[in-house]
Order: sequence, then C-alpha cells, then structure tokens
Amino acid sequence: MNRRKFVVATTLTAGSLTACGKPEAIGTAVAPGAKPLHWKMVTSWPANFPGLGAGAARLAEMIGRMSGGRLTVKVFGGGELVPPFEVFDAVSQGTAQMGHSGAYYWKGKAEAAQFFCAVPFGMNAQEMNGWLYHGGGMELWRELYAKFNLVPFAAGNTGVQCAGWFRKEIRSVGDLKGLKMRIPGLGGEVLQRLGGSPVNIPGAELFTALQTGAIDATEWVGPYNDLAFGLHTVAQHCYYPGWQEPGPTLECMVNKTAFDALPDDLKAIVEAAARAINDDMLADYTTQNQRALDTLEKEHGVALKPLPPDVLAALRSTSAQVVEEIANKDPFSARVYASYRTYLDGARRWHEVSEAAYYAAR
Amino acid sequence: MNRRKFVVATTLTAGSLTACGKPEAIGTAVAPGAKPLHWKMVTSWPANFPGLGAGAARLAEMIGRMSGGRLTVKVFGGGELVPPFEVFDAVSQGTAQMGHSGAYYWKGKAEAAQFFCAVPFGMNAQEMNGWLYHGGGMELWRELYAKFNLVPFAAGNTGVQCAGWFRKEIRSVGDLKGLKMRIPGLGGEVLQRLGGSPVNIPGAELFTALQTGAIDATEWVGPYNDLAFGLHTVAQHCYYPGWQEPGPTLECMVNKTAFDALPDDLKAIVEAAARAINDDMLADYTTQNQRALDTLEKEHGVALKPLPPDVLAALRSTSAQVVEEIANKDPFSARVYASYRTYLDGARRWHEVSEAAYYAAR
Repeated sequence: MNRRKFVVATTLTAGSLTACGKPEAIGTAVAPGAKPLHWKMVTSWPANFPGLGAGAARLAEMIGRMSGGRLTVKVFGGGELVPPFEVFDAVSQGTAQMGHSGAYYWKGKAEAAQFFCAVPFGMNAQEMNGWLYHGGGMELWRELYAKFNLVPFAAGNTGVQCAGWFRKEIRSVGDLKGLKMRIPGLGGEVLQRLGGSPVNIPGAELFTALQTGAIDATEWVGPYNDLAFGLHTVAQHCYYPGWQEPGPTLECMVNKTAFDALPDDLKAIVEAAARAINDDMLADYTTQNQRALDTLEKEHGVALKPLPPDVLAALRSTSAQVVEEIANKDPFSARVYASYRTYLDGARRWHEVSEAAYYAAR
Repeated sequence: MNRRKFVVATTLTAGSLTACGKPEAIGTAVAPGAKPLHWKMVTSWPANFPGLGAGAARLAEMIGRMSGGRLTVKVFGGGELVPPFEVFDAVSQGTAQMGHSGAYYWKGKAEAAQFFCAVPFGMNAQEMNGWLYHGGGMELWRELYAKFNLVPFAAGNTGVQCAGWFRKEIRSVGDLKGLKMRIPGLGGEVLQRLGGSPVNIPGAELFTALQTGAIDATEWVGPYNDLAFGLHTVAQHCYYPGWQEPGPTLECMVNKTAFDALPDDLKAIVEAAARAINDDMLADYTTQNQRALDTLEKEHGVALKPLPPDVLAALRSTSAQVVEEIANKDPFSARVYASYRTYLDGARRWHEVSEAAYYAAR
C-alpha cells in the first residue's frame, strides 16, 4: 500500500467523522481526525551534545511546534538507534525518516559529498550559505543525494574552528612528520601527505587518547566543545585558525520517499526549520565560543598560538592539491568542484573588500 | 468583541459544519471551516527591490506556504500603503499587521533602536545574530518594542557594506570637511563631527543627486544594489570597507496584539520564517555582491579603494564617542549599550583567532 492510499483510507474510515459538531478555532492546525506523523531523527552526536546535538533537538522541536503536532520528530543520539556513522544508510533505507550529521562523513558513498560540508582552505559559513542557497550548490547536493533516496538541507554551522590541540609545539613543517593526530576527512589527507598519521576516533575518546599519548594532537571543534572535553588539561598548545574546517555545514537529511509524501505545507515547514537552525546554530557557536575562549584564556591561562606562516603555506598548497584531485575522481565530483571553486574565487574577492577588510579596520 | 470570542463565534455558526462527510488528508493544514487570516506587510523598500524587498516577499510567501494558507501576507512596497519611514507607526497602530524595515530608522522613537540594526565599527552579521539570539540582544529588543505594541524579529542582513561612492578622492580626514554625503543614522552623525554635511534622501533619488552635484558622495548598500542604480557612472571613487554599516540587521516587526492572538503553531511559523529569511538574505547578498563586484571591476573598470588609515582612525575614534553618548541618553539605552559592548568585545577576540585569522590565512 502506498502512502497516499494509506492516508485516504485512514481518514475515510475514521478520520473525518470526528470533526462533526465540534467547534474549531482558526488556530487548529491538526485537521480533526487526521493521523499525526511521528518521525525519527538519527544523529551523529550524543543526544543534546552542546551546539550540534542541541541544534538537532531544536530542529525537531520547531517542526513539531510549527505543524501543531501533525509531524513530530523524536531525536536519537548517535548509537541510540544506529551508530553515529550509519546515519546516512539509516535514513536512506528508511530506518529513520530524518538524520542530522555532516556530509563529509559520507565520502565513502560519494567523494563529492565532502564539498557540502568542509573543504580545507575553502568557504566559511557565510560563503557556504551563499553557495548552497544562491550559487547553485544546493541543486548539486540534491542531485547527489537523490541517488540515495535522500533530500539534503543545510542545518547548522560551527563557524571557523580551531586548528587543534597539540602536546608538542609546532614550529615548522617538519614538526608534522610522524605526528599522530585525530583529524578526519580532507584535513587528515593533507596531514598524511606532509608526513603525519591522521586517525579518526569518536569525540568521547579524545581526552583519554590525548592524555595517554595514544595520539599527539587532535582537532575537535573550537573553544566551546573543546573546553567541555577538557582538552586544555591534556595538551598545552592550541593553534589557530582552523584551516581544515573553516565553516563546516551540518546537514539535515530526509528520506526522499517520506519527504515526497508530505503535503506541501509540511514540506515547507521542514525546509524552513532547517534554514532557521542553520541560522541559529552559528549564532549559538559564535556566542559560546567567545565565552569559552574567555574562560580558557582568563581562568586556565591558555594562550592560543597562530600556526607559523611556513606551516600554513605548506598546508595551503597541499590542500589545493588534495581538493583538486577529487575533481578527477568522477564526472559529478568535477561538476561540484567547478561550481565550488568559481563561487569561492568570487567570494574571496568580495570578502577581501568587505568582511576581511572590516575585521582588519575595526 | 475580543478576538477569541470572534473566532469561536465564527466557527460555531458556520465553520465546523463544512467539515462533515469530507475526506481529510493528513496534510490538510487549514482546519475545515476555519477562516484564514489575511495580513498586510508594509515595507521601507520598493516592492521586490533586489535583496531587501525580495527578502520581504519571500518571508510572506513562506508564511503562506507553511500555514497552508491559514495565514497569508500581502506585501506593500514603501509608499504603496504608507510611506517608507512610517512603517513603524503603521504596524504599531495596526494599519498593517507586519512590517519589514531597519530599526535604525526609528531612533526618533527610541535612541536604543539603532543598536538592533547597525552601529559604526560595531558587529557584523554573524555577530549580530549571535548577540540577538544567544547573547541577550533579542530580549532587550522585545522589551523596547513591546512599549510600542510591536514584536521584533531579525529578518535579513546585507553583510558588510561599502563605504560609498565619492565624486572626489578622499586622501585625508580634511577631505571630509564640507563633504555633502547621503549617509543616514549614526554614520551621518560621525561624518558631521568630522566636518561633513550628512543628508538622508531616498534611494531612488541618489543617482540624480550625485549626477547633478546636489551631493558629493553617497553610501548605499554594496555592489549589488549600487550597480543597479548606476552609481559608478556618476561617481568615480568607491571606497571600502563599510565602517558605517558592518552588518545591518533588517527587521520583521509584527503588531503585538495580532501576534499574541495567533495560535501557537502560527506564532512558531512566523518566527521560523523570519529566521529562515535572516539566513537567506545574507546568502543572497553574499552571492549577488560578489557577482556585481566582478561586473564593476571587469566590465566597468571600477577600482575599489581602501579608506586611508588616518581617515579610518578618525572615523573609528569619533564613532566610539558617538555610540557611547547614546548610552547616556536614557537608562534603557545604557542597558542595551552595555549588553552590546560586552558581546562585541568577546566577539572581537574570538573572531581575531577564527574568522579574521582565517581570511588572512586563506
């Protein structure tokens, strides 16, 4: 039975009758007798994890509130229903109708997915939003995810991250050699080419791994999430800026079959809720990161250090190589790279005389 | 008759009966028999004006779509229903239920309103969103507007603007003396203290005013809107960055009586639509400004110039004086200034090692 038939059958047999004779206020969103939809949202974060998980929770709450309870969404932390890195498959297959995660986790499915999250030396949050929603990026993302029966939305951003916490000082490119560092995705690939050993371990294990010396360094998010993990107590050196993740877009993905079956108003509600959270999560990180940085600097005596210019230069040129290589892996990746690159070039020029010039002038 | 009684009466006499016997899909948002609300939105921009007006139109469209037509919003350009600068009064008094404008136009009503839009050398778009939604700014804005029977929402941002178009080169602070420039708000106040003559004239008259020499210079928005007005054909010198408007927040204001009477789901829809447009307008400007800049530079040979360091320094110190003086005008302004200033200080430090450092490193 397809969904449309199911809906009609349900409302014919039980639904509409309950409406008769009852006063209805203008505000009643739930059509009397209509059967509410209850969706599951699987995520790659611990439930209510500050920033990322809190954003997912707010997204679910907004959908429920805006739909007047006609579409409710129950949020599951990573591992509660499916493991953190199986969100994509779970939503694709319909185990859950929604997911909240980051597209760069799915490079095993499609290399091009990484462009929709974070690219080393690529776009920051403001630029990602511009590219996705007015520069053609979202159309490409939808095209890619449609192959997996998914509909993607941008649904959050951390802003520029930190370069990470290191047990030893980084004075030159040579210091990256042999460095065992938790750094996933393209950033990890860049480190490897410069002689390092990138690993990916879950956030919850970072503290112990760094404390025991199982790893020499880790990047995580930024002051807000890093302070909460206590990374400053097990690594002395915190570097900036986060070249590896200059404005990662978090994603809300929806099972395409489930999304297509929604009436137009609920489609619009899901879409707008994602946009609202996209706006809200960056505002949250912008606030909490500045407060946590203040705590790190004033209460814990942490002195953030800029990466040395020659280290930055090596990371920059190696990143360019790594990113360009993705374009050669398949025709779709080439299209995404071309679109991303064109937008980035234009954004770089405009922001030189606007946002960047303003930060410098202020 | 208050609104609640009216609603119940309407639905009792006519509303609910029409539902009987009709099949209802899960997706039916309009409660059968419910009377849809038709709102008016007055704006300070020409209808569908690129960026600002287009954002207002999308906001109205989203509310209509998300509510399944239970709340529709008809948008009026400036002057169509009320003049551009009477939006505040019109919504306050209920002539229209909604308005789209910029809070700095209402300093005549309350000096503190300016902090919720643009402050010279103040916060950029990302910082404004952080302050408003997670730093206490929105609570203060709501408190201020409640006195005027209004509920405010952030609903758009242009990002950092340009410093403006000038018929003569600006080489030193002395060149500002006697300069007749269209520059509203606090920026105009700053110019005046440095010997200039600020004026405020509507956007549609800028081209002619600059062409005839009635004014020597104008700031407007940035490449996107400035190119459309043809300002580059009547003034040779374009300066950056836009110290006077580093990230103006556009506002959606709702008549408080009308808003309070909405059922909770429609309240949530209006709120989320504003957040979504807040996200979307900045993305729009980020895209269109870079394209227009490319056109100005490559097709029209415009060479943007940085304001000379000593001019910037004079503008910066004078701006600080002007902004601080607002804090002394009334106790509420003092509270807003204190909150704004604390947030800005923290944001400045965090963005030194994140967004600004990243722009420099890229």
